[in-house]
This record gives sequence, structure tokens and C-alpha cells, in this order.
Amino acid sequence: MSERNFRHLLQKQWDKGHFVCVGLDSDFEKIPKSYHRPGNERDMGVANTIVAFNLAIVEQTCDLVCAYKPNIAFYEAHGDEGLQALWRTIAEIHFLAPDVPVILDAKRGDIGNSNKGYVTGSFNWLQADAVTISPYLGQEALQPFLDQKDKGIFVLCHTSNSGAGEFQDLPVGDDGEKLCSYVARQVSKKWNTNKNCGLVVGATYPREIEQIRNVVSDDITFLIPGIGKQGGDLQSSVTAGKNRWGQGFIVNNSSGVIFATDPRRQVLWMNEDIESCR
Amino acid sequence: MSERNFRHLLQKQWDKGHFVCVGLDSDFEKIPKSYHRPGNERDMGVANTIVAFNLAIVEQTCDLVCAYKPNIAFYEAHGDEGLQALWRTIAEIHFLAPDVPVILDAKRGDIGNSNKGYVTGSFNWLQADAVTISPYLGQEALQPFLDQKDKGIFVLCHTSNSGAGEFQDLPVGDDGEKLCSYVARQVSKKWNTNKNCGLVVGATYPREIEQIRNVVSDDITFLIPGIGKQGGDLQSSVTAGKNRWGQGFIVNNSSGVIFATDPRRQVLWMNEDIESCR
Repeated sequence: MSERNFRHLLQKQWDKGHFVCVGLDSDFEKIPKSYHRPGNERDMGVANTIVAFNLAIVEQTCDLVCAYKPNIAFYEAHGDEGLQALWRTIAEIHFLAPDVPVILDAKRGDIGNSNKGYVTGSFNWLQADAVTISPYLGQEALQPFLDQKDKGIFVLCHTSNSGAGEFQDLPVGDDGEKLCSYVARQVSKKWNTNKNCGLVVGATYPREIEQIRNVVSDDITFLIPGIGKQGGDLQSSVTAGKNRWGQGFIVNNSSGVIFATDPRRQVLWMNEDIESCR
Repeated sequence: MSERNFRHLLQKQWDKGHFVCVGLDSDFEKIPKSYHRPGNERDMGVANTIVAFNLAIVEQTCDLVCAYKPNIAFYEAHGDEGLQALWRTIAEIHFLAPDVPVILDAKRGDIGNSNKGYVTGSFNWLQADAVTISPYLGQEALQPFLDQKDKGIFVLCHTSNSGAGEFQDLPVGDDGEKLCSYVARQVSKKWNTNKNCGLVVGATYPREIEQIRNVVSDDITFLIPGIGKQGGDLQSSVTAGKNRWGQGFIVNNSSGVIFATDPRRQVLWMNEDIESCR
């Protein structure tokens, strides 16, 4: 695993026209009965079921996507078993689709010393290629993440939820720039010395995506969640988020793909939509 | 566990004059050799060692403290084993010291649907009594935490790290209020309908602690990290952070207690210092 580099893996996928990330937010309650697996004392049923479901999604989509993004919250909900399912899922993705990077959606962030623990957990234990982090504690605290030259570090900027603006839209400083835009500029200008930073900008806010693209450099990748159930529009997000080379973005869809009758078809449709506007 | 209520447990400790929280940031590398335990195939050495160390701290201090606060980052660093150690530590604290609440320092925060997973993980799986969360996504997203009436929800406000001010000190809005103060007011006035909210304010910033105390109601509890290694001053933090009844705060010390030669004496000294100025 030591030679893997998130940026290189992603660029190879972009060069193939792959911009879709499948969010493996594998809510156990929603997994169809056909995937339910028995467990024994050591190797448990919930974990086996989640892994079986995830791998079916991966097998159907891995030649079409640029990344997978499991949200660790859905796994922590099942404790030991859930985290074992996450570990096994990522290990299997690296085996089945070694050219597809895995973004751990964890939104972590603590003071520096504690972040070292999260870095070890995310990259050494879970073997993710990239992680999402929360900006609130600032660069100095988050440096242990930023130091990971071969990993991708996606900083929350403007999230996709309806109440995101409570703080993210606050005008800051003398010129009333929005906090999310200020965060974006700090990341682009100061945090990105290892060229491993990206930003999370929700598809539900295409105007903000465009504003943020205008204040950051073209080497900043946008991770765009919120397509599908949350109501974000794919084409307007891509139009707003692409960089000058028609790349620089990852569009995530979670439940709209993984719980679809035909996940592969959903990704194919998204790929067509993206190709039409980038 | 269903009858436990964080607020009531904490008030009982305050009434006994207990305001010290011991941070179980049990960095495996720093645990003395005398605690090292062997493992077998299923029950592993790292977990056994961390649990043995934590329980020795708990046994020496549980009649003197108001809470324990394990930071999950130090456990995630050891994957399955670390998280098993955390689960066992919390279960043992509930057994050995059922009147001492456990604050899970996790700094979580995601969109609402994902937060449900974190809520289940923190409270149903790990059995914490309280949790720390990051404010960046806003109240609407964090509502699954805020809905937990019997739990404590500590929102990051002004953190203890040296670079905390990058965003937290930004002037926001027309009157140039600091972002941390704005966050504090939102939590106090809008988020706290279940009277379960607190704020994390670092001991390294006593002036900000005082400013924030002046803009929030007296029922908001301050969780104050940063004493000890990080350089925060105990007495000035308490003087700035206490409410009108000389309560309303929790002072955390992690490595300054757990890696001390005599952890009990450290807590006794802190208790004396606190009593002298509240």
C-alpha cells in the first residue's frame, strides 16, 4: 500500500472520464434481505451482511467510478461489528479495484496530538486513501492530516445540509466574505503545501460552489455530496465546480446509487450527465 | 443505564466540590511497562494493557472527580483493539464508579442522518453519558445529538490549541463579534432547548472564557481542557468560567494526571486550587 498516492489514483480515473464517487453509507436497516448473512460467534452476521452488500455494489460499479466513500458514522452505529465491516470493505475494495481510491468520510478534527491518533486510525488501520476533516480547530491543529503527502485531505467548506448556513454563511472580516469562502481561501493558499487538500462543497448550493471555485486554485479538488435524496442538481454542480481543465471535482451519490434497483445504471446515467456539461 | 442523566450526575459531583475531569488519553506508548499485559488470540495485549492502566487511574481518583473523558482518537489509533479497550474502560467505569459520568471526547459532527449513527455509536454502543461535537454544520444537522435529553452535548467553542484563533477568533457579522462568541450564543439561546448543552473552552484562553461566560446563560456548562501540558492556568480559568453559583464548569487534565507518579495527589491539588477561587 505504501506506493499508493491519492492524487495520482484520482487523476487516472478523471483521465478515463470517471467523476462519480459512490457513497457506501450502508444503513443496515435498508440493506435488502437477499444480502442478509448468518454469523457465528466470531464472525458476525451484521458485519457479514454489510460487507456482502458493499461488495455487490463495488463489483457492479468499480470500472465506472473515481472513488468510494464510506461514511464511518453508519459503521460506528454497529460498534465492533460495524467497524470490522468497514475495515473488511476497504480491504476488499483495494483487492477488487486497486486503482479506485477510498475516501473515508469521518469529518474528524481535534488538537494536533489527538489528530495523530485519527491519522493512524484512518490510514494505517482502515487503510483509507483520503479522509474528510472539519476546519474549526485551524491548520495548526490539523497539520498531522496535512502532513500525509500521499493522502487526500478534504476539508469541510460548505456542507450539503439545509442548515449549513448557520455558521458557514456568516460574513467574516472587513469585507463581509462568507466564512465558507474564507475557509476555502485559507486551505488553498496556506494549508495546501503538500498539494493534497480538497474541499467539501454540497451540490445543494451550486451558487456557493461557483463562488468558492472562483477564490481557490485549480488544483483544489471539490468533493460534492448532496446529489440524489438531498436534492442537489448534478449538472449545475459540475458546471459550477469544475476547474479550467474540466476536472477537479468528485460527485458523490450515496443512497441514490447503493439502494437503487440497478446501481450500475445509476452511475452510467451520472457519467453521461457529467460528460454533457464539463 | 436508562435512568442515568448526565446533568444530574454532574450536579451531584459539583455539590460534593468535585470539578476535575480526568482525561483518559491513554497513549499506549506512554503507558508504563508495569501495566503491560499479555494477550491471546481473542483478547489482545494492547487492549488489556490500556484497560489495566485506565482502571488503575479510575481506582485512584473516582471519589475525587466529576467525570472521566476518554478521547476516542487515542483508541482509534489501535483499531479494533483500541476501541475494544475504550468500550471495556467505559463499562468498567460504570461498574466501579456508577455516579461518575463519562464524556466521550469525539468532536463528531455530520449531516443529520449520519449523526444518528454517531449518536448510536456514542451512547448505545460505547455507553457514554456525554459527547463533544463540532459546530460547523449547524444546529439543524446536529439535532440528533441535541435530542438526547439525558446526555450532555459539549459543543466546541474556543479550543485550547495555539492556532485555535484562525477561524474561532474571526470577527463575524456587523458588530465584529468573534465566531466563538457567536457560536456560544447560538448554543445558549437556540440549541439548548433540552438543557443538555455545554461548551468546550480552552484553559489556554482565560480572556475568551470570560467573554463567553458573559454572553451565555448560567446553565451552560464549560468543559475546560488545556490545563497542564498545554499550559492553561487552573485558577484563572475557574475564575473566568464559573457561573453565578460558583459552579457550571468542568476542568479537564489528561496527561498531567494519568502519567503522573501519583495521579490521586494531582487531583487533590487541583481540587484545592479550584476550591480557593470559585
